[in-house]
Amino acid sequence: MSGAHGYERVALIGLGLIASSMARAMRRAGMGAEIVGHARSEATREAAMRIGFVDRVTGTAADAVEGADLVVLATPVGAMGAVAAEIGPRLKPGATLTDVGSVKRAVIDAVGPHLPESVHFVPAHPLAGTEHSGPGAGFASLFDGRWCLIVPPDGDGGQAAADLAAFWRRLGAKTDVMDPDHHDLVLAVTSHAPHLIAYTMVGVADDLSRVTDGEVIEYSAAGFRDFTRIAASDPTMWRDVFLTNRDATLEILGRFTEELFALQRAIRTGDGDLLHDYFSRTRAIRRGILEAGQDIDAPDFGRAGGR
Amino acid sequence: MSGAHGYERVALIGLGLIASSMARAMRRAGMGAEIVGHARSEATREAAMRIGFVDRVTGTAADAVEGADLVVLATPVGAMGAVAAEIGPRLKPGATLTDVGSVKRAVIDAVGPHLPESVHFVPAHPLAGTEHSGPGAGFASLFDGRWCLIVPPDGDGGQAAADLAAFWRRLGAKTDVMDPDHHDLVLAVTSHAPHLIAYTMVGVADDLSRVTDGEVIEYSAAGFRDFTRIAASDPTMWRDVFLTNRDATLEILGRFTEELFALQRAIRTGDGDLLHDYFSRTRAIRRGILEAGQDIDAPDFGRAGGR
Repeated sequence: MSGAHGYERVALIGLGLIASSMARAMRRAGMGAEIVGHARSEATREAAMRIGFVDRVTGTAADAVEGADLVVLATPVGAMGAVAAEIGPRLKPGATLTDVGSVKRAVIDAVGPHLPESVHFVPAHPLAGTEHSGPGAGFASLFDGRWCLIVPPDGDGGQAAADLAAFWRRLGAKTDVMDPDHHDLVLAVTSHAPHLIAYTMVGVADDLSRVTDGEVIEYSAAGFRDFTRIAASDPTMWRDVFLTNRDATLEILGRFTEELFALQRAIRTGDGDLLHDYFSRTRAIRRGILEAGQDIDAPDFGRAGGR
Repeated sequence: MSGAHGYERVALIGLGLIASSMARAMRRAGMGAEIVGHARSEATREAAMRIGFVDRVTGTAADAVEGADLVVLATPVGAMGAVAAEIGPRLKPGATLTDVGSVKRAVIDAVGPHLPESVHFVPAHPLAGTEHSGPGAGFASLFDGRWCLIVPPDGDGGQAAADLAAFWRRLGAKTDVMDPDHHDLVLAVTSHAPHLIAYTMVGVADDLSRVTDGEVIEYSAAGFRDFTRIAASDPTMWRDVFLTNRDATLEILGRFTEELFALQRAIRTGDGDLLHDYFSRTRAIRRGILEAGQDIDAPDFGRAGGR
């Protein structure tokens, strides 16, 4: 159906993994809205046109939002404030402005002040992604069965938030509403701290691989392989995540270091019971995730094939 | 062909994920050897017979090795010394004794002294596994395309090591020979330290999930999901790994902590360039792993389907 939820024209600012997947999922859902795209890089704009997931691209973000009913900020979060300052005066009265950033409080603080009263600001965060980036990395099923958190700056966000949630459900996602600060703490635990830890471990291995002449790569075992996958994610996106969700990330890393030291001490002193109890406890949370349907229980660490 | 490499009878001591996968892979390869199994738990022995991957089970390890040409220690590494003491006097002259432990120096020190001169001791380590454990978790393709490191206590291990390597290749693995201490250092980087880190992060989240009422599980995002998968591995096996590869693991964890503190400091001081450079560097090692064929480049974090 055309113009679902009143969105006759959708502007995507930033044309990477998430935006290109959104466009593909919109097409899959049969939405007839015109999709206008802008990316800072001309090569990205050309790729988006060549792949064909946008109807047209514009040379500036301000031109892209002209007449758009829904504007989606899909740049790294560090760039969103500047984009908002540029597009604010050009936004259509009554339009909804949203984003897909992994951090919400910093986005609200950076974007909010640039928006006219007549625009509905409904931040959101789809909990989906891969370690690949760029306009060619998107696919229509990226959001299927995953959560998209709707994070209004105040209260429940009213009709504009309800419409945006319905839009995301048509892209395949499940939706829920969450408070911005709570969002940032939960994501620090489930995503931001784990990413920093994975980056760190891969960095240590990289140093060591010079010593062991490539063996770290050649004999990369389960565990480490999963870390390298995580640590291959987009560097700019993740730099911005850590800089903008600083307090929550540092708090979780502080707890992490404390626990890691306790386990290191148990290894040093040979306290096998402490280790065994700890490792038994962590099994339970995995079962909880499987029951929540957020992952599959494949016997090969989730990889296709038995490699 | 029957009795490949002279192994007319193979004894598996311990009947979990690895041993049951070995038995299945032996059958798949058409090896006609009799497979005799022993596990400490009667329930495990009964499960092995019911599933049918062994020809018979015995109530003691010593009975299992009677007349066996190849004896495989597939218990947690902490139990291998005691098993060796029990079976040593019953081993057939000319037999090969091997193991599948994730640590090699400690196994050599614990097992070696109990073996008669007439037995060939060839430790080994298949770099394969899943987060599941027990006799029902095995499958014939577990070792396909994965490395099995042959780790003789001294030198290249001679004909017995060559025969064992040929045996592993028939189970689907690639083989290489490695020095014990070097093995333990490489595995501390690629497997042991990453597992401890994953256990720790999941433990932190588990504490916090009581605060946030299940949201950590419900909204478990990429990154954390991979950690929970790793942290669901067998607690006894991993306790023993850390206690027996203590020095190498603590050394790597020391380096890890050092680097993590540097990144935490960059977050605190807002040093985006340091973070971006670090994250860009870690992408390269991922590409190296893909080129080495140790993982697949799937667009959905390796999960089947687009969930």
